[in-house]
Amino acid sequence: MSSTAEKVALIVGAGDYIGSAIAKRFAQEGYLVCLGRRKVEKLQPLVDEISELGGKAKAFALDARDEANVEHVFAEIESTVGEIDVMIFNVGANVQFPILETTSRVFHKVWEMACFAGFLNGREAAKYMVPRKRGSIFFTGATASVKGNAGFGAFSSAKAGLRSLAQAMARELGPKNIHVAHLVIDAGVDTEWVHQLMKERGIDESSLPEDGLMKPESVAQAYWQLHQQSRDAWTFELDIRPYAEKW
Amino acid sequence: MSSTAEKVALIVGAGDYIGSAIAKRFAQEGYLVCLGRRKVEKLQPLVDEISELGGKAKAFALDARDEANVEHVFAEIESTVGEIDVMIFNVGANVQFPILETTSRVFHKVWEMACFAGFLNGREAAKYMVPRKRGSIFFTGATASVKGNAGFGAFSSAKAGLRSLAQAMARELGPKNIHVAHLVIDAGVDTEWVHQLMKERGIDESSLPEDGLMKPESVAQAYWQLHQQSRDAWTFELDIRPYAEKW
Amino acid sequence: MSSTAEKVALIVGAGDYIGSAIAKRFAQEGYLVCLGRRKVEKLQPLVDEISELGGKAKAFALDARDEANVEHVFAEIESTVGEIDVMIFNVGANVQFPILETTSRVFHKVWEMACFAGFLNGREAAKYMVPRKRGSIFFTGATASVKGNAGFGAFSSAKAGLRSLAQAMARELGPKNIHVAHLVIDAGVDTEWVHQLMKERGIDESSLPEDGLMKPESVAQAYWQLHQQSRDAWTFELDIRPYAEKW
Amino acid sequence: MSSTAEKVALIVGAGDYIGSAIAKRFAQEGYLVCLGRRKVEKLQPLVDEISELGGKAKAFALDARDEANVEHVFAEIESTVGEIDVMIFNVGANVQFPILETTSRVFHKVWEMACFAGFLNGREAAKYMVPRKRGSIFFTGATASVKGNAGFGAFSSAKAGLRSLAQAMARELGPKNIHVAHLVIDAGVDTEWVHQLMKERGIDESSLPEDGLMKPESVAQAYWQLHQQSRDAWTFELDIRPYAEKW
Repeated sequence: MSSTAEKVALIVGAGDYIGSAIAKRFAQEGYLVCLGRRKVEKLQPLVDEISELGGKAKAFALDARDEANVEHVFAEIESTVGEIDVMIFNVGANVQFPILETTSRVFHKVWEMACFAGFLNGREAAKYMVPRKRGSIFFTGATASVKGNAGFGAFSSAKAGLRSLAQAMARELGPKNIHVAHLVIDAGVDTEWVHQLMKERGIDESSLPEDGLMKPESVAQAYWQLHQQSRDAWTFELDIRPYAEKW
Repeated sequence: MSSTAEKVALIVGAGDYIGSAIAKRFAQEGYLVCLGRRKVEKLQPLVDEISELGGKAKAFALDARDEANVEHVFAEIESTVGEIDVMIFNVGANVQFPILETTSRVFHKVWEMACFAGFLNGREAAKYMVPRKRGSIFFTGATASVKGNAGFGAFSSAKAGLRSLAQAMARELGPKNIHVAHLVIDAGVDTEWVHQLMKERGIDESSLPEDGLMKPESVAQAYWQLHQQSRDAWTFELDIRPYAEKW
Repeated sequence: MSSTAEKVALIVGAGDYIGSAIAKRFAQEGYLVCLGRRKVEKLQPLVDEISELGGKAKAFALDARDEANVEHVFAEIESTVGEIDVMIFNVGANVQFPILETTSRVFHKVWEMACFAGFLNGREAAKYMVPRKRGSIFFTGATASVKGNAGFGAFSSAKAGLRSLAQAMARELGPKNIHVAHLVIDAGVDTEWVHQLMKERGIDESSLPEDGLMKPESVAQAYWQLHQQSRDAWTFELDIRPYAEKW
Repeated sequence: MSSTAEKVALIVGAGDYIGSAIAKRFAQEGYLVCLGRRKVEKLQPLVDEISELGGKAKAFALDARDEANVEHVFAEIESTVGEIDVMIFNVGANVQFPILETTSRVFHKVWEMACFAGFLNGREAAKYMVPRKRGSIFFTGATASVKGNAGFGAFSSAKAGLRSLAQAMARELGPKNIHVAHLVIDAGVDTEWVHQLMKERGIDESSLPEDGLMKPESVAQAYWQLHQQSRDAWTFELDIRPYAEKW
């Protein structure tokens, strides 16, 4: 049992730029941030960085698709760290394949990461939050969540599945005072992965407008604001994209 | 190898009222109808009925979620019956559970049936149709495909995933002359299952307006019309519901 | 008073290729087709053509935005021709302007033609159909009906307004046995206007794929099928576009 | 010409609870708030209240549907008060009529207030903001903006038209560094009008859950957060509703 009154935020999929930015933001606001990622050792630099900034963070080895592991990590956090006040599911799996080149293995794995893991972690968070009648459960979405584009059958199927789950959870859990929301990130985020992608696609970065890529800190800000909303005016869904983005 | 010029329609999930009606409709229009269902012996009455009506039907043991089985059945049809002209994926899995009572097994199974099987059969159809540059691939959707209602997290997640897959396939395969469409059945269909459901929920059927339930034949009609569209004006999505339905 | 049992179809906005094709289709199916257009003399060639094909058509001078005129034409048709069985509102007003170059006059006129006229004619049709408890009221939509693209503020605002009106009417009038539907034409239709547009934009028509433009007859076919639907399975909305269209 | 470096917010439709709350919020954040309303004398209590709280507010007689008046008021503010940094269009016109009881006058008036006035004020704001390459233009939406419910043909048509206009403006003006957003208020707001409505409908207010009605301050907060977003992550649309709301 926790002896503290720490406010705890759990970031599932804390490994990437977005997850890191969310973690830092909640830590900066006084949250004890729990970070979940398969390869826990890779989280050490983030834990250290948060610590140096005066915040508190703990890393957990978490395979978000593994039910027993998910149950174990949530239970451990609840018993040794504190009550989870907000859980943010931020696991991605963006792949692109023509339909005839989409293997069943890929289709299954993408769903497992982007949708099934969202269910496991969302439900686990609800398990602890519903009896307490408070908490936030947020899911990171993408353009693919609302549009099935050619070449993105597996990814958009999984993301649409996650969004619909979030919607059903919001409708069911809202009246139980649990805030469920879905954030549609409709653009590239300024991460190493996107820079790599642009290089591969021969896109000259100097041709991009200033602030043409979304900053991970801005995604973190959107999540922070969602968590601050008073319950008489909760948002289920919002989109974010850079000002210069075509959509 | 087929020695005939039969037009072949394959109904995956031919076991229920809707599947039967679709099969009968395409048989009546001169199609040789292939019926896929896990328990193949249960298809015999339908095969007999179509036969008595002067049509042609063949039954296949098909577990729509089993990749090897799907590949096998498609190959067998293509080599012994004829070229599949239209494949209709009609597998349902409507379940209702509060999120905390939704087991991971249920969430996985519902997705396997309603979404993953759609991917397997849709992709397999595309494999044969794309080189021939013609064919139709249709998917049966529901209210849950477009709305995540409380208590329907698993079902709506899977159906939204199927819809998004269909959309990505339509965008990719349309220019290859393959018609991909998604039919949103936004109402109860007049089946034994729905009558049973109404009984369980204490709904007095005599209180229903005339034609208040959708007839399976009307769903079949919608599919037949979709398949008849000329390619300069293909529909990707349409909804159907009884005139008196609340929505 | 009508002495006949003619089935009457009224096409409001019968002046263009689509309106003509719809009129010919319903005439071919045995309907007495009433054609409404501001400059009634321009309808004579269409009336003659339908007549030569063995059909029946009557032309009416109709300014669809003028309430008194709308009431008058409907009353005249009902008293001298027969009971209107289906009314199709097919008035367009596609214009493109940057927001700062959109005059209030343009914004108002586009709305008057594309939305307000839809209300006047839709309501007038309902006035006669509701007491008879039967009839169809269909509205022609466009890409702009569901998406507000840059440069299309006036047009998309009016078309979205028409679509939402149609939706409200469908929900209200469905239970009264009136079929209200909205057809999203998500592509260029093969008309002189579109050929002219392509010339202006320097698009080489020979570069278009075969059947790359929608045929007016296909739009007519979609409307005919909608009107044939049995009331246990009415469609509110469907999209149509050529197979090769990007969307 | 303005001699100051005041940040100016203009609230069009400042007469109701929501408009007042937005005004107070922006005043509290240091904005000089300009209030537009037809009956300017009714704004005096709000001007006084803001003044007493240490803020600055000015009232303008503004008929938001009158182009000349809109142009005049914007020009006056720009020349005598300061550069408009954010314009919030908050004019409502919620009416409910069956389609056959919807007069053309009502249909036109509702559109004029809820949609046309939005165009006039949005365009006027853009006229000043585009050359400066900065500014925010926000529109208040409602459930009717995204759903055409029975009995709400006029209102939902106008609100859908406003939303589509906002979307087209966002796509066009985003790259010009103007933030256009649309807020979907999907619930009753805690105002005298809603209390009156509940009384008329025989709803016992004591049966409402705590925080079951949205507070005007929460709407104001949503607008304030939108205006604070950094341009690499702008939201076009978000919904807000009380936690216990059915949707």
